[in-house]
Amino acid sequence: MNPLQKFQIEVRVRYQETDAQGRVHHATYPNYFECARVEMLRAGGISYADLENQGVILVVTELGCNYLGGAVFDDLLVVEVETVRAKGTRIQHQYVIRRGTETLVTGHTVVACINPQGRPQPLPDFLRSIPSA
Amino acid sequence: MNPLQKFQIEVRVRYQETDAQGRVHHATYPNYFECARVEMLRAGGISYADLENQGVILVVTELGCNYLGGAVFDDLLVVEVETVRAKGTRIQHQYVIRRGTETLVTGHTVVACINPQGRPQPLPDFLRSIPSA
Amino acid sequence: MNPLQKFQIEVRVRYQETDAQGRVHHATYPNYFECARVEMLRAGGISYADLENQGVILVVTELGCNYLGGAVFDDLLVVEVETVRAKGTRIQHQYVIRRGTETLVTGHTVVACINPQGRPQPLPDFLRSIPSA
Amino acid sequence: MNPLQKFQIEVRVRYQETDAQGRVHHATYPNYFECARVEMLRAGGISYADLENQGVILVVTELGCNYLGGAVFDDLLVVEVETVRAKGTRIQHQYVIRRGTETLVTGHTVVACINPQGRPQPLPDFLRSIPSA
Repeated sequence: MNPLQKFQIEVRVRYQETDAQGRVHHATYPNYFECARVEMLRAGGISYADLENQGVILVVTELGCNYLGGAVFDDLLVVEVETVRAKGTRIQHQYVIRRGTETLVTGHTVVACINPQGRPQPLPDFLRSIPSA
Repeated sequence: MNPLQKFQIEVRVRYQETDAQGRVHHATYPNYFECARVEMLRAGGISYADLENQGVILVVTELGCNYLGGAVFDDLLVVEVETVRAKGTRIQHQYVIRRGTETLVTGHTVVACINPQGRPQPLPDFLRSIPSA
Repeated sequence: MNPLQKFQIEVRVRYQETDAQGRVHHATYPNYFECARVEMLRAGGISYADLENQGVILVVTELGCNYLGGAVFDDLLVVEVETVRAKGTRIQHQYVIRRGTETLVTGHTVVACINPQGRPQPLPDFLRSIPSA
Repeated sequence: MNPLQKFQIEVRVRYQETDAQGRVHHATYPNYFECARVEMLRAGGISYADLENQGVILVVTELGCNYLGGAVFDDLLVVEVETVRAKGTRIQHQYVIRRGTETLVTGHTVVACINPQGRPQPLPDFLRSIPSA
């Protein structure tokens, strides 16, 4: 399968990411989503850092998370990312975070492509042509 | 108006909360939402820290954010929180984050009430009776 | 006293800043130091955001922290900052973080003044002339 | 060499860890230090999560960082950790963070061993006997 369609990474929970309830703070997971997007691009031969240097900037315009269970310090999580739609100026991804067979978090994001002046610009061809789920 | 129904706080953007795009990182705003929830409770005479000590634990089960504009370092933001629904074991809040008259972020959360063993428990009466929007 | 010499702020501990040991994670306090530096400048009539826009960029080159006690969620801390030395291209500050009369953290930072190209530049006069502790 | 004496990990810089100066925020590096400590223990056959569950809690009592250069988004950093001293109730580590051959950050921490009631306790034998640098 094209890695730009579906990809997964492993993330080890850091101490700093937990909170006094003993679990990962809910605002941590969007960072795991972002790591998965970046590694998905890399697996597809694209460095997001290079993209930005070339003036192709992706900004998050929408985020949704559903928290079903709580990860704890040192958990080794699998973060799965899937491209739902890549069209015009926007890409929608969905995510599942698992610990073993247990689903802890599901979510989605929409990123929009802007230029260095902050104006929307069409996605580059290689992003627009990602086969979607 | 009952502060437990609608409340707002001011938040000053910290340097650490910005990212290399020069704006506040999108995973920061849920922390502002959380600060607003905590201060809303305090304004209503409730310390969330005390609640937890009494075994009433609120965990975030759902989060949604729409990013319309980007805050930058040192912005003084207004974070408005409103109780949409407080019933059974759950409270739903919605949020608007503004810089002056400009809306930067809207969002919502659902928190569920659990006991120290992690089981759902009914909201205490004073939370269940919050007049909703 | 000149606020640029000695100043203090209050900081309310956020949930996200705690960790699974139930206390504020040690990497959080440098952010409180930074907030105190920024507010100290503001109290002295200087917006650090404006300074950066004028090409006067302060980067942290040294950090030290001693942790004597642990803050917990919702603590209202006092963060005291004092200018120890402001000379050439560098400013040294020292910090004390207290909860009531209890000292929780002491520390220091050195910031260096650079230009937008990343080269050291002398501190502006109004920073170089801060009376030191 | 005993991994508990000297060890290194790789860390990929996340977007959230950068700030508006375009580099990694200075309060991020202590988290990289902590990841290195945890992985050093794991390489030596010790899970820090298990240690805590057995009532052996390590808390940071001292932190020092010197910032020589700035990492940027997506840098693949090497974080080297070395045990300087492990005696009584405390372990001192030192760190070097490199990007290729360039040293970006050096630092040290002291962790103290406490019990679940927060009282100092002697390091377990397997930690006290770490050969030091």
